[in-house]
Amino acid sequence: MIAVAERINGMFSDVKKAIVDRDPRPVQELARRQSEAGAGFLDLNVGTAASDPVSVMKWLIQVTQEVTSTPPSIDSQKFEVVKAALEVVKGPSLINSCKGQAEELDKYIPLAMEKNASLVCLTIDKQGIPQDIDKRVEIAANIVAKAAEYGLEPTRLFIDPILFPINVDQKQPTLMLEVFRQIRYISDPPPHIIVGLSNLSQGTKQRPLINKAFLSMALAAGMDAAVMDVLDEDLMNTAICTEMILNKQIYSDSFLKAARK
Amino acid sequence: MIAVAERINGMFSDVKKAIVDRDPRPVQELARRQSEAGAGFLDLNVGTAASDPVSVMKWLIQVTQEVTSTPPSIDSQKFEVVKAALEVVKGPSLINSCKGQAEELDKYIPLAMEKNASLVCLTIDKQGIPQDIDKRVEIAANIVAKAAEYGLEPTRLFIDPILFPINVDQKQPTLMLEVFRQIRYISDPPPHIIVGLSNLSQGTKQRPLINKAFLSMALAAGMDAAVMDVLDEDLMNTAICTEMILNKQIYSDSFLKAARK
Repeated sequence: MIAVAERINGMFSDVKKAIVDRDPRPVQELARRQSEAGAGFLDLNVGTAASDPVSVMKWLIQVTQEVTSTPPSIDSQKFEVVKAALEVVKGPSLINSCKGQAEELDKYIPLAMEKNASLVCLTIDKQGIPQDIDKRVEIAANIVAKAAEYGLEPTRLFIDPILFPINVDQKQPTLMLEVFRQIRYISDPPPHIIVGLSNLSQGTKQRPLINKAFLSMALAAGMDAAVMDVLDEDLMNTAICTEMILNKQIYSDSFLKAARK
Repeated sequence: MIAVAERINGMFSDVKKAIVDRDPRPVQELARRQSEAGAGFLDLNVGTAASDPVSVMKWLIQVTQEVTSTPPSIDSQKFEVVKAALEVVKGPSLINSCKGQAEELDKYIPLAMEKNASLVCLTIDKQGIPQDIDKRVEIAANIVAKAAEYGLEPTRLFIDPILFPINVDQKQPTLMLEVFRQIRYISDPPPHIIVGLSNLSQGTKQRPLINKAFLSMALAAGMDAAVMDVLDEDLMNTAICTEMILNKQIYSDSFLKAARK
């Protein structure tokens, strides 16, 4: 699976402080540790405190690029932040994220194409986040069709069907597993399927346990990427082990070590 | 889910010694602890050392019945052992197991009916254990049809599609998940689906991790029972948490405690 490391986010107090002080060290340390732990992308989110999100995002990209080649995931809802940030990216990146309605896709997909970036698209349209399976899959299909129109390969497209906290709506996770299964059939090859894994356990008292159990179920249902805590070793072991059970990694007595090489 | 506690088995040296010495205390202690940990049935297996499996199985039933009301799972491949053992059972029980060919079912199902027992049936026929999905589901359908013929309710029927160790055939677990999904459609209500969970990790170096990851995937795919190590608290937490995520148990901050009450 593709693990997008979630920790460089201005919502965490250590990162917020580093941003305010423009102190690269805590951010670079997180970049290094998350890369070593198996991150496929480093999510970068300026948080809510930054008065100048463009310059902060550029700074986060620059300081992390100094210490790792793990590509950044530019986590912002603002098009101008994403566009400006991409100017300083060396190599590939992930845009996280754009909404699923046509006018948004018509802005973001050409930008991703131009900048050699991958793109996360949410199954949201003008009516908001659909609560049912069919509408989510319908928006996903529209996104895939639009990407094909522009020539963005499915391997650079990540569909995010939006995972809610379990204590908000307990029916959602089961629906999500079905959404994952159906999205896999939209195209061949299918797009990637991503969620913000930690969202599920938000506000609960058993966060690691809930995240691990859902991760195994979700990978078996076809999800193949997640914004997640790659520094949680148990969680990463669960990811590796689940993929081994699903025959996506070869079993050996040292399969956990082998996967980390 | 229904957890069948696996620990009272003559293959474990402490149980073997207790059997040889006819010392009820270690067996009763395991019966108590496994019941407290959430066992739905206590699997009782005399192991290979017993020269008189009938009397040992009867003794195991009697000594465990003295300390718990958790029903026994009579784990033997010998019809005469099962039949004799059922004479001393007070209340319900589980027969574990019979093979899926007609002549076996014609012996075991009437016995289960007569003795108010539930019955585990393996997807094995005269040709042995099928390696593919279709044949396993076909044998399961034959078992369900035969049970219906005799009037054994699906709620008392457990289909075991036979889980192999991951280091024997890494393609099997993915096939098993599909087998679980298909067995759920054979009847309404469906039969229970059971596996020997610990089999999967037999001979590996990461037994608890493999067991937990597969348990979550399997429960999401429709398996609803397992012979398992109920004394592994992490594993039981994974079971409870997975069922909560699947909306089979209500979420509260103390859902792990609530499920154990």
